[in-house]
Amino acid sequence: MTRSRRGGRQAFPQTQPHSRLGTPPPLPRDGLRVVALGGLGEIGRNMTVFEHAGKLLVVDCGVLFPEEHQPGVDVILPDFSFLRDRLDDVVGLVLTHGHEDHIGGVPYLLRERRDIPLVGSRLTLAFVSAKLQEHGIRPVTVEVREGERRDLGPFDLEFAAVNHSIPDSLAVGIRTAAGLVVHTGDFKMDQFPLDGRITDLRAFARWGEEGVDLFLTDSTNAEVPGFTLSEQELTPAIETVFRTAPRRVVVSSFASHVHRIQQVLDAAHAHGRKVAFVGRSMVRNMGIARDLGYLTVPDGLVVDLKDLDKLPDRKVALVCTGSQGEPMAALSRMATRDHVIRIGEGDTVLLASSLIPGNENAIYRVINGLTKWGANVVHKGNAKVHVSGHASAGELVYCYNLVRPRNVMPVHGEWRHLRANADLAIKTGVEPDRVVVAEDGVVIDLVGGRVAATGKVPSHHVYVDGNTVGGATEDSLAERRTLAAEGVITVLVTVDPDTGLSVERPEFLTRGLVQDETTFDAVVPAIEKVLAKAARDGVDDQEQLEQLVARAISTWAHRTHRRSPLIIPVVMDA
Amino acid sequence: MTRSRRGGRQAFPQTQPHSRLGTPPPLPRDGLRVVALGGLGEIGRNMTVFEHAGKLLVVDCGVLFPEEHQPGVDVILPDFSFLRDRLDDVVGLVLTHGHEDHIGGVPYLLRERRDIPLVGSRLTLAFVSAKLQEHGIRPVTVEVREGERRDLGPFDLEFAAVNHSIPDSLAVGIRTAAGLVVHTGDFKMDQFPLDGRITDLRAFARWGEEGVDLFLTDSTNAEVPGFTLSEQELTPAIETVFRTAPRRVVVSSFASHVHRIQQVLDAAHAHGRKVAFVGRSMVRNMGIARDLGYLTVPDGLVVDLKDLDKLPDRKVALVCTGSQGEPMAALSRMATRDHVIRIGEGDTVLLASSLIPGNENAIYRVINGLTKWGANVVHKGNAKVHVSGHASAGELVYCYNLVRPRNVMPVHGEWRHLRANADLAIKTGVEPDRVVVAEDGVVIDLVGGRVAATGKVPSHHVYVDGNTVGGATEDSLAERRTLAAEGVITVLVTVDPDTGLSVERPEFLTRGLVQDETTFDAVVPAIEKVLAKAARDGVDDQEQLEQLVARAISTWAHRTHRRSPLIIPVVMDA
Repeated sequence: MTRSRRGGRQAFPQTQPHSRLGTPPPLPRDGLRVVALGGLGEIGRNMTVFEHAGKLLVVDCGVLFPEEHQPGVDVILPDFSFLRDRLDDVVGLVLTHGHEDHIGGVPYLLRERRDIPLVGSRLTLAFVSAKLQEHGIRPVTVEVREGERRDLGPFDLEFAAVNHSIPDSLAVGIRTAAGLVVHTGDFKMDQFPLDGRITDLRAFARWGEEGVDLFLTDSTNAEVPGFTLSEQELTPAIETVFRTAPRRVVVSSFASHVHRIQQVLDAAHAHGRKVAFVGRSMVRNMGIARDLGYLTVPDGLVVDLKDLDKLPDRKVALVCTGSQGEPMAALSRMATRDHVIRIGEGDTVLLASSLIPGNENAIYRVINGLTKWGANVVHKGNAKVHVSGHASAGELVYCYNLVRPRNVMPVHGEWRHLRANADLAIKTGVEPDRVVVAEDGVVIDLVGGRVAATGKVPSHHVYVDGNTVGGATEDSLAERRTLAAEGVITVLVTVDPDTGLSVERPEFLTRGLVQDETTFDAVVPAIEKVLAKAARDGVDDQEQLEQLVARAISTWAHRTHRRSPLIIPVVMDA
Repeated sequence: MTRSRRGGRQAFPQTQPHSRLGTPPPLPRDGLRVVALGGLGEIGRNMTVFEHAGKLLVVDCGVLFPEEHQPGVDVILPDFSFLRDRLDDVVGLVLTHGHEDHIGGVPYLLRERRDIPLVGSRLTLAFVSAKLQEHGIRPVTVEVREGERRDLGPFDLEFAAVNHSIPDSLAVGIRTAAGLVVHTGDFKMDQFPLDGRITDLRAFARWGEEGVDLFLTDSTNAEVPGFTLSEQELTPAIETVFRTAPRRVVVSSFASHVHRIQQVLDAAHAHGRKVAFVGRSMVRNMGIARDLGYLTVPDGLVVDLKDLDKLPDRKVALVCTGSQGEPMAALSRMATRDHVIRIGEGDTVLLASSLIPGNENAIYRVINGLTKWGANVVHKGNAKVHVSGHASAGELVYCYNLVRPRNVMPVHGEWRHLRANADLAIKTGVEPDRVVVAEDGVVIDLVGGRVAATGKVPSHHVYVDGNTVGGATEDSLAERRTLAAEGVITVLVTVDPDTGLSVERPEFLTRGLVQDETTFDAVVPAIEKVLAKAARDGVDDQEQLEQLVARAISTWAHRTHRRSPLIIPVVMDA
């Protein structure tokens, strides 16, 4: 009907925005239920739950990093409440790869049930285990590799190699009585990856021939036309930096981007520079990658930071964290001279990393700081030093045509990415009403070979804030934003219990406000007035009086200063 | 010496970062002083003051828009204090073009002295006058056009046409006894501008032959290799939108981008759509541009918003503000369904605008919101619907080779842009020590044909915050950020004046914190303890006691919750 209204010019996927869906109905015996607890409508906290025959399979459990309008928040977790009373039904947690937005939530989920088996590739399990160690958790792990099949409860899993910005990533095929579901995880189709491990399109093709009933695909770059360039294409720019840099070279990248760092190590080696790793996660991950053989380090290339002092600047390279402008990371501290490495004229800083939307200000602050000290900063804005880890539209279309899925559910992206991915599926001939664009928490049931949204479960942002998990709420964050934008006024009013009138000038204690001694002169009479009226009306309840005082101050602040500070009124008896 | 240390591989410009410069010396009679009060180290609040023979010439007076870490700030002004006691020496304010970051500060400067003559092109003066009218100010204006020469006190001005993302932009040549200074203003070198008014390279060449002693150039795109594309290159994408959009087309762009909007009007006309302008500034500016003949509107094309209801969706187009995700602008309100235009499935939204760094989150929030309602959002990320208004590196190099300036001062940019622009000048053969990269407030003197930094004047961010100008300070903003990240605790402690011990459980009033009734149980004993110790030590000064209480709470909050809330301690006698 939508279509006829629109002259059939264009077809639209099933969308579930602003959804009024309620509690889902019971799942038919032969049905499969899919519930994304994160990753739909956001880039991060990826987590998808599959339910069949009373058992639950979880794929990924990541964190989302807060934006500036979420002050005081360390990380954001998926909402586990859908799982909470069914933890014993969870047969396993499949981790497609070792990025924070896929494994960062694992320590918090394992707090709920320690022995959930973690299923993943060798490097993925090594990264997550190292993280869990810091939380004092020793996980139950099940190592799998591409091509392998393994039963977990009613789920028959088959893993396929996919290429991404971290080694050893996997896509997973999930067979149940409801049919075959394929989840790509994060992936791209680099035809010349540094480790030669390409995305296994043969497996995708086999799955396609068998018949894929539901295809969940990475939407991150669905809006980007064409094809993501190969990692190999970065070699010239990285080479140039190491060949021409007059003094030190400082490279910042993700602590998990083993191949990018391999390229850096190779370039440093070729140009006779020693390398030191800087930053806890960088040192830890590169140690793991090296031990497991994912990173090849020529003898004597990597040295300790302190050993660099003995070398001339032209023989020195550093590989550090902080490519996203994280204030506590090595690079930001170099930019503010709050680091043992004191950047100076002639040093070269290479940001071999993406620029994650939302981090621009922080990153450019770091670039400007480094440039002020004289560094030549090479970044994706002025050189070809980064390619995305995700498949662009061109690659996704290949996948759809290869797999020819019966139903499609775009995952991993903000709404605009999900919708763009859905439109690509439809373009390749997938029936529009078999392409479902959903938000976190929407319950998608695959029954009789068709997908439909049947309900919704809680999918709130769960904020990790200091030592509290789930403490901060949307309301407390809204209050924090108001505190920031408007400030806060505590007013102390001492009243004579007999007259109800204040016995002295109210005291105003403020934070985040601009004021002088005369600022509040104008509001004092207003306060006296409401107190007098309250006395006349026989109002002597402290709370009521405090509300009246607060309202008087709010009105004044808005009228005279166009501000709406938070008011903490305190009315006391003399 | 720097160079020898660095093996002479590379030459560095004069840089004045983190400068310890003091009050500048008196300016020699035949010298010219250049002081940027804004625009150096930031994109915005462009303002440059030229001093010669005791008189002052100001070029531009813009605002800077706040970032999320500057909560509660409306706009940021240049620091006028350098001018304040010399306002009578100001012979004029030259406005190179009508963008907010060049004219937005004018109402605030004219508050200091109403009759400063505003010198600019016809459209620029029309835009600034309309703005001033809203502030109840009728300015003294001096209209000039390209090719024109005019004396302002000791300054002999010559204006040249430059092409930018707003019509009628000018570069200015400034002749004094100290030599010829050329200020490009914002510009690019589109060889096929819609109005045929190209940047006047002949004038640049003439100036070059006469000899340019100081060249101030737009650094915004100095990091961008190659050449900025012509506005004409956007026609196909805009055409496609209007040809294929199944329902309404909503176009968002800057309210000053007359040529971009001309393209939109032409496309709408060609495809039989009526157009309504939405948003106060859009309606106002397009009215001005039309009246003055800068915008050509076919009869009957533009209608009132209400008249659109009578037309089928396929015959409708809207042109509105909000392309940067400004929450109060039309587009953001459409995204949240808080607007009379209710976006639905099949509507097309065209963001024919840049994505200013720092606005990404806001813009993507709007794009996601519109997409959720079913709109197809076309933006620079997925179509060629925007080109920059600034010259890229390739164009800047042409200018340097054409002008061959003796001294260069990059303007209009963050430090990374200024430095990139400086490096371009040096590449074309300008002596490195004649290229000066400076921060706001650094005093640059041109004496005997050489530039040197001789001092520094105040150049603080002046925050417009509600009704106050210059009220908010770096400190109060820092306090606001802490309020947002950590929250605030007001604690009321009533002590027995005799014993100095509290007579009841302290009361905790908080904002922006997560708590329950037991939260503060652990800190109460700590407070009792410090009070008891204070009593033993004979401390009874209220302020001292309050500090002790605050410290006790801070220590507890940090130890137990890893938080550092602001504390407002109130100690009262019972």
